[in-house]
Amino acid sequence: MTVSNSLIEEKLKTAEEIAQLLPNHVTMGCSGFTPAGYPKLIPQAFANRIETEKKSGKTFSINLYAGASTGEELDGVLAKTGALKLRIPYQSNSYLRNLINQGETDFIDMHLSHVVKYIEHGILPKIDVAIVEAIDVTNDGKIYLSTSSGMSATYIKNAESVYIELTDTHPLELKNYHDIYLPSHHSKGGPIPIINPQDRIGESYVQVPPEKIKGIVRSSKPDAATVFKTPDSDCQNIAAHVLEFIQHEIKMGRIPKEYLPFQNGVGNIANAVLASMAKDPKFHAIQMYTEVVQDSVFDLIDAGKLEIASTSALTFSELGLKRFHENISAWKSKFVIRPQEISNHPEVIRRMGLIAMNTAIEIDIYGNVNSTHVMGTSMMNGIGGSGDFTRNSHLSIFMTPSLAKDGNISAIVPMVSHTDHNEHSTMIFVTENGLADLRGCPPKKRAELIIEKCAHPIYRDKLRSYYETALKVSKGKHTPHDLENALSWHVKFLKTGSMK
Amino acid sequence: MTVSNSLIEEKLKTAEEIAQLLPNHVTMGCSGFTPAGYPKLIPQAFANRIETEKKSGKTFSINLYAGASTGEELDGVLAKTGALKLRIPYQSNSYLRNLINQGETDFIDMHLSHVVKYIEHGILPKIDVAIVEAIDVTNDGKIYLSTSSGMSATYIKNAESVYIELTDTHPLELKNYHDIYLPSHHSKGGPIPIINPQDRIGESYVQVPPEKIKGIVRSSKPDAATVFKTPDSDCQNIAAHVLEFIQHEIKMGRIPKEYLPFQNGVGNIANAVLASMAKDPKFHAIQMYTEVVQDSVFDLIDAGKLEIASTSALTFSELGLKRFHENISAWKSKFVIRPQEISNHPEVIRRMGLIAMNTAIEIDIYGNVNSTHVMGTSMMNGIGGSGDFTRNSHLSIFMTPSLAKDGNISAIVPMVSHTDHNEHSTMIFVTENGLADLRGCPPKKRAELIIEKCAHPIYRDKLRSYYETALKVSKGKHTPHDLENALSWHVKFLKTGSMK
Repeated sequence: MTVSNSLIEEKLKTAEEIAQLLPNHVTMGCSGFTPAGYPKLIPQAFANRIETEKKSGKTFSINLYAGASTGEELDGVLAKTGALKLRIPYQSNSYLRNLINQGETDFIDMHLSHVVKYIEHGILPKIDVAIVEAIDVTNDGKIYLSTSSGMSATYIKNAESVYIELTDTHPLELKNYHDIYLPSHHSKGGPIPIINPQDRIGESYVQVPPEKIKGIVRSSKPDAATVFKTPDSDCQNIAAHVLEFIQHEIKMGRIPKEYLPFQNGVGNIANAVLASMAKDPKFHAIQMYTEVVQDSVFDLIDAGKLEIASTSALTFSELGLKRFHENISAWKSKFVIRPQEISNHPEVIRRMGLIAMNTAIEIDIYGNVNSTHVMGTSMMNGIGGSGDFTRNSHLSIFMTPSLAKDGNISAIVPMVSHTDHNEHSTMIFVTENGLADLRGCPPKKRAELIIEKCAHPIYRDKLRSYYETALKVSKGKHTPHDLENALSWHVKFLKTGSMK
Repeated sequence: MTVSNSLIEEKLKTAEEIAQLLPNHVTMGCSGFTPAGYPKLIPQAFANRIETEKKSGKTFSINLYAGASTGEELDGVLAKTGALKLRIPYQSNSYLRNLINQGETDFIDMHLSHVVKYIEHGILPKIDVAIVEAIDVTNDGKIYLSTSSGMSATYIKNAESVYIELTDTHPLELKNYHDIYLPSHHSKGGPIPIINPQDRIGESYVQVPPEKIKGIVRSSKPDAATVFKTPDSDCQNIAAHVLEFIQHEIKMGRIPKEYLPFQNGVGNIANAVLASMAKDPKFHAIQMYTEVVQDSVFDLIDAGKLEIASTSALTFSELGLKRFHENISAWKSKFVIRPQEISNHPEVIRRMGLIAMNTAIEIDIYGNVNSTHVMGTSMMNGIGGSGDFTRNSHLSIFMTPSLAKDGNISAIVPMVSHTDHNEHSTMIFVTENGLADLRGCPPKKRAELIIEKCAHPIYRDKLRSYYETALKVSKGKHTPHDLENALSWHVKFLKTGSMK
């Protein structure tokens, strides 16, 4: 519950009043990283205003930047106005996704670690206003963010006007969880002084000249609760393969006995891995250096295994959030909430040597990964941080069930229809069928491993057949391909609804 | 000219004697990074021995690791024995390239920054012997490398036996040029303390227990001279576009007035860029943080513009080397020779904010780059450091002439046949026709820019036609593709010898 002060009293407005202050063609930098800590009232009020003015013939065109994807009350309501012309750097809202794939909304699918630079260097349209959810703001302009850090500090710094949704949905102890530090561009400032995930190097607030705050609205609207499915047997099998592999790597001396920090993507597979670690007596003090922490972290806490989780957002279900609030004083040493520039920084990721675990849409027989484009042309969610982590981690693991669409899609294909992570950077692939360790394998060995270990049995013969033909017809025998048929599985799916 | 000491006297052997000591199935870690500082006598003697023993029916199988590509006297002579089963991590020898593309020799095309870890963690076959060219070795086992650093320190550290080719082709002052520092794995040891390209953080020698040195051979064989062509008009046009762009970026405040360190790939285009900088009065104190320095650096020196060149190899022509030797005392402050683990380290590259300039084989309309595979299947040279630099630099520039094979190949294609650098990581593309700045552009805008700015006029209509069809037939309008025809240009070339 935020208390009041003269700055808050002076700037207090309604969401509707603030919505009236937003100009047409506005570029908004909003807080939020996954459905956590994003503004909920001003966007809805702005959407209402757009709809009203549209009726009198006015056309709006707005740009929306956030940390990553956000909730329906930001991405959804603004997308539905039809006024959203540009969205960066990641999204997962179904309505917005449709607009992007219909060619209505421009989406620049960026490495999260590039966003600060692209904004501060004027590569992207300049930010006019920052709209951030906060739990408190002081008279001298210290803004205490809520459940995510994301891009908020950069948006606040670069916007001309700052609007705050002051939420009372979190205890003020949440203040202590943030570590706000923005690195300098280029060598100025020297190395980023993070050696371990728990290192705190910044402040717990974002400082802004108080006069830049142009409006504050009080909010009691909670983050949209994350739907949390029980992992199915595919997820559990994938998790089991991953855990076995990590133990093998420890045995081989490639991962120290005390582990390395884990980065863990969003979703059911990632959750299954953490749940399995919580249950497996071979796993003990777990460190996470990641973008998003979900409810699955409670499994580790319950098992007494969570040492530290460094993240850019706490994305909990309603029940999870309740539990977090109850323990908010006790758990301060277990979480650090960082700007995504730091959570995803290649310098820090490479130095610490993370174990990165992300999901793929499709994988090809040579180890290239598509994690963004369905059938090569339609955006799913975006690359997010998966490139930052894959490219610089000690160990990169990609996970996916081997089938999709009732078996009509094989996640293992001859050639991916879009490449987000290429054969040079990828290492380990896991499906429910098995794990392929491609490190140190030339291309042909990789093809054999992926087909035999990862592909679903119903597609294995078809993959073998493609590969054998490729071996025969390919001009180059280093990475044999039958170029006439390399994308034929996708073409077939588009024509018939099945790769079979 | 090396002097003698008791260790050298005690270990002195002929190349033939050492060649006899190398076991069958040996895995050799050799010095050399480009045709600089690689062993020349022992490999030839070993090749001779293999040829001799082959005649009596013995079959050899050997693995060769080096820093990058090397000269004919290492890569060529061993490839020609037919005994070379595995080569990492980069090559450019035509005979070896043929073996790889015929499927005879396995080649693992690796990011140079991954090699140390893959070797030390046993992902790749263990190194049995290190064979390194050096200019001196002390009684207590300090090995002073010659014109490259590459992987030598790691190979010496991990090999059971070390063999040295002690060359008298360089003055002993070359000792002062090296800065040997191997970072720890994971966070141990903290940040790599390099802030500026001239920072020296290690020793000028590689320390080895003297008893590990099993043989020394004296050599007077120089590095193979690099053939150095005068840049053609395409190269000069590309260079002009690049220089104009860099000045524009300075004006926009994205590159500081004092520049950022340049990374510059190998070859005629790279040389043309440096030569143009030397001539252009708008360019002054140039810093390089790169893998390889070639003769083109003399243009900068002559113009009084070279501040520092950090590199993993000095690859000079005969004339260039003569000039280097004459100035070797005076130029000590102008060069640092580093292990490739440091020259290519993502942590350092990201921190310094390099301007990376590399060449592409082909580029597609959405900004994906193929820099390794001709027609998707045949290895050209390898990814080398281009991935390390592209992925982590402040600015990444890809350069290529827009045509190849007398105009029968367009370097701009609908979809690349292999992806080494994807749309998320690439930024700037340059051909002789123009420059496309793709930063902050959604896919369709990228396609328009690449076609109009970079493609050769003779292929522009054909590219427009592909793109227009893609816009119509593509299910997703985010990254429109006509998947049935996305690779049809390559298929046509393979069938008819032309993309026309």
